[in-house]
Amino acid sequence: MFKNIKLAIAQISTNPGNIESNVAKIIQYIKKARENNAKIVVFPELAIPGYMSLDLMLYPKYVEENIKALKKIAENSKGILVIVGFIDWDKERAGPDGTPIRYNSAAVIYKQKILAIQDKTLLPDYDVFFENRYFSQGRERKIIDFEGLKIGVQICEDLWDENYPIKVSEDLVKKGADILINISGSPFYIGKRFDREKLIKKVSKNYCTPFIYVNTVGVQDGYDGELIFDGSSMIFNKNGNLIYLGKPFEEELILLDSDDLFKKTKKLKMPIVNPAEELYKGLILAIKQYFQRTNFSKAFIGLSGGIDSAIVAAIAVGALGKDNVVGIYMPSPFSSKQSLEEVEKAVKNLNIKLEIIPIDNIYTMFLKTLKNQFGGLPFDTTEENIQARIRGIILMAHANKFNGLVISTANKTETALGYSTLYGDMCGAIAPLADVSKPKVYELANFINKKSNQEIIPQTTIERVPTAELRENQTDEQSLGGSYTLISPLVDEIIEERKNFEELSKKYPKILIEKIFDLINKSEYKRRQAPPGIKVTKKAFGLGRRIPISHGFKS
Amino acid sequence: MFKNIKLAIAQISTNPGNIESNVAKIIQYIKKARENNAKIVVFPELAIPGYMSLDLMLYPKYVEENIKALKKIAENSKGILVIVGFIDWDKERAGPDGTPIRYNSAAVIYKQKILAIQDKTLLPDYDVFFENRYFSQGRERKIIDFEGLKIGVQICEDLWDENYPIKVSEDLVKKGADILINISGSPFYIGKRFDREKLIKKVSKNYCTPFIYVNTVGVQDGYDGELIFDGSSMIFNKNGNLIYLGKPFEEELILLDSDDLFKKTKKLKMPIVNPAEELYKGLILAIKQYFQRTNFSKAFIGLSGGIDSAIVAAIAVGALGKDNVVGIYMPSPFSSKQSLEEVEKAVKNLNIKLEIIPIDNIYTMFLKTLKNQFGGLPFDTTEENIQARIRGIILMAHANKFNGLVISTANKTETALGYSTLYGDMCGAIAPLADVSKPKVYELANFINKKSNQEIIPQTTIERVPTAELRENQTDEQSLGGSYTLISPLVDEIIEERKNFEELSKKYPKILIEKIFDLINKSEYKRRQAPPGIKVTKKAFGLGRRIPISHGFKS
Repeated sequence: MFKNIKLAIAQISTNPGNIESNVAKIIQYIKKARENNAKIVVFPELAIPGYMSLDLMLYPKYVEENIKALKKIAENSKGILVIVGFIDWDKERAGPDGTPIRYNSAAVIYKQKILAIQDKTLLPDYDVFFENRYFSQGRERKIIDFEGLKIGVQICEDLWDENYPIKVSEDLVKKGADILINISGSPFYIGKRFDREKLIKKVSKNYCTPFIYVNTVGVQDGYDGELIFDGSSMIFNKNGNLIYLGKPFEEELILLDSDDLFKKTKKLKMPIVNPAEELYKGLILAIKQYFQRTNFSKAFIGLSGGIDSAIVAAIAVGALGKDNVVGIYMPSPFSSKQSLEEVEKAVKNLNIKLEIIPIDNIYTMFLKTLKNQFGGLPFDTTEENIQARIRGIILMAHANKFNGLVISTANKTETALGYSTLYGDMCGAIAPLADVSKPKVYELANFINKKSNQEIIPQTTIERVPTAELRENQTDEQSLGGSYTLISPLVDEIIEERKNFEELSKKYPKILIEKIFDLINKSEYKRRQAPPGIKVTKKAFGLGRRIPISHGFKS
Repeated sequence: MFKNIKLAIAQISTNPGNIESNVAKIIQYIKKARENNAKIVVFPELAIPGYMSLDLMLYPKYVEENIKALKKIAENSKGILVIVGFIDWDKERAGPDGTPIRYNSAAVIYKQKILAIQDKTLLPDYDVFFENRYFSQGRERKIIDFEGLKIGVQICEDLWDENYPIKVSEDLVKKGADILINISGSPFYIGKRFDREKLIKKVSKNYCTPFIYVNTVGVQDGYDGELIFDGSSMIFNKNGNLIYLGKPFEEELILLDSDDLFKKTKKLKMPIVNPAEELYKGLILAIKQYFQRTNFSKAFIGLSGGIDSAIVAAIAVGALGKDNVVGIYMPSPFSSKQSLEEVEKAVKNLNIKLEIIPIDNIYTMFLKTLKNQFGGLPFDTTEENIQARIRGIILMAHANKFNGLVISTANKTETALGYSTLYGDMCGAIAPLADVSKPKVYELANFINKKSNQEIIPQTTIERVPTAELRENQTDEQSLGGSYTLISPLVDEIIEERKNFEELSKKYPKILIEKIFDLINKSEYKRRQAPPGIKVTKKAFGLGRRIPISHGFKS
């Protein structure tokens, strides 16, 4: 057999479109790995350009820069074997769009030279993925021989081969792999860790092969929606036992002895994590990195006295610090005394600055200005929207004047039903709750309070009846035709589980299902202009769910 | 040889997600074709479900409905061979995402039975296409024998095989095809007709094979951007001569004698069309169908006294009729006397209703309300944006109150540079000029006036210096650092031709290129929340151009 060596897994965050800083970080981790006597160090999928480089990859110059970067990494890899994700290409061969053919590849660098290149075989094109836009299917699969240790390298989707005709893991094992290494850019959803564990365990056990799974970490722009990469790299020994779990939502250099991969011992129980905690940590990471990436530090949040805006403020404080978060309360003639009280409590608990800016005068002036056109017509959604949009203007004005970003407070249930005003409460650079349905919002509130051992989200806010306060005595329940405890799960079954009318009608009143389907379909146009959400479920709104603005299909 | 028969080409518009009405139309055209003694009738790609059915195709029920619809069509096809696009599937085999494997297919119906199914071989995944999300590569290519006439059927991209390893046309000819029929869903850009002609001519001439190219017509939701399908079906005889061109932007039942396909005579010269006329007709069709599809008839347009809003109003009148278009002029303290005059002239020329709603009082009230927060700070973009956003609220309020849609007036140059206010002048359901750069806006103006033989867009509007009038003595040229005659072509070369800094610096001042690149990159976040544009060039903003919101790449 082969002698024991130290292996290093660099679970790092790299930033799409910022090759120079990505390479600096990779070289720094190579150094760290070497200092720890590692003989092999592994980086995630497309670590050099950043996974979600999107159409930047169509520029030959971008691919060239990423290849130059690879050479620079090779020069800095003395005494260590490096496996790192990059974009390879066939410069002389054009693909369907006329740009050179590209591959999503892993470079194996040994003795400061490119020893081998392993391309990704399986290219996902469902949900939020569109890899066929950028890559061709891999050229061949080879085994890397490192001083007698035979390594099979695969890339992300290559592991999820169940519904593909090519079985990558099996093929690599048949070709003689002693261990499998998968480099990934695998986006997070709540509980995904368990799906990955189950699958890798199966592969590892089936083939009696140790499995090293290296995932990237951080938040990246998925074009229409932000994707969290949660790290949580995994190491399985040859018996299919998980022996190490990387930190979720954090960078980490993981070190291990290769001998441990081939021992029977050291079984680790997958830690059970409260889904609300996963969600909370994911959102904090997302907001933090979104602001860093876009070079902003200050957030403005419209506080309504409701639970959504209180949660968003708590997340913003967690991500940006209390001094960078400003709450703005903008009462209208329909705002209740309780709303102000709730806002004041939340702001006190979070220790953030509060601006109170009543919109009564502006609202009255709009009505007066529009009297010639609207005079005599009854109050309707128009006037509700005017209020929400005045608030949008005030929030955006603060962001403009003080160089910050507005964070939108819309949750997934509202977003699904269109229970929000376009250009009003839908204003913002990012919408942290756009994939968090109302029941999860409550779970988040309870988690945040429990974690802090004190009331952060006021208990009275949690307990009050949700209302938009855009007309007299309005409640969400009235406007939507049912309570959130009924409607939110129904919405989730429609969106996340794609259940059809027939299946749903066994559980919910038909008239309610009809109404909810109708609201979801009718509000697609709003979602097209919504700020980017952050994917935390299997099916988020955004590019992973492309439904026409208008259609007659009833599922 | 085979005897002469009558062939019919049904260049029709079908509506994604509305299978029932699509089928009704298809059956109606079959009837028409039969009444005209046609023995074969050909429909476009995915005619049954509608080309851009998007993620509706992931619902098994949707595919089932489309297959039921195909059977209904078969029942109604007595005495005629029908070739029609639909979604076929392999119900028992799951694809990567767990849903059944689908094909983008043509059904050949003969004697009321499915005689053959021909799948699309080449699936495009560049620009606005993402067919690998929905379809698997076709199973095989066969020849259809119709009473001795051997027909090779192909689907859209199968024709554009230059950069693919499989050469579909060649393969079909080798298999014995006497004629090639291509059914397409081919989106429009200005001049695309000539690209199609060139390519088909080459194929037809190379293989001495007549070529029938059937394109759909209408406007469809491409998820992030509307796609126009321009019809313009084409018929080439065996010498590679175009003998018929279908109407652009209109439905048409084209009839021809098969004998004409094999004659040397009857060469048609491709009509040369003014690009401004193509553009105008395409936009009219797009606005018309967008309103029909979304069940609206009334449009509200903010008129500024500038050329963009005047053009948009003219297009809206062309699409919806003058009684359905309302212009709203909303002067602020910075609006000039000339702007009102220009608006009044345009409104008079178009014979539409005008509302004049000064925003001074509301603007003053905003400043007063924000005095505590902003007092003492200098006037900046914040105050400019407040004005634009007040206008947005007023426009949206009209749309809400009177059940209409706001049409946005932003042009491509502004959209590229972010010279527009998010939630302000960027409000709207659709943005007809989002892919029309400033010089093309002028060409459109001149075309509209010439076509009407009278002044529709006031000459004084065409000639005035463009200004946003959001502060004293502002001009666009000042704000952007150069005139549109310089900047617009530069923007087009960056976006449409993807030229890099080095190439551009041979033609433009480096400092200007730097500034323009910077503005384009910095304003990506705005475009993500922009209303859908209408693609009329080779590269429009939207799903066909996916650039990260923030990145450090300099092309």
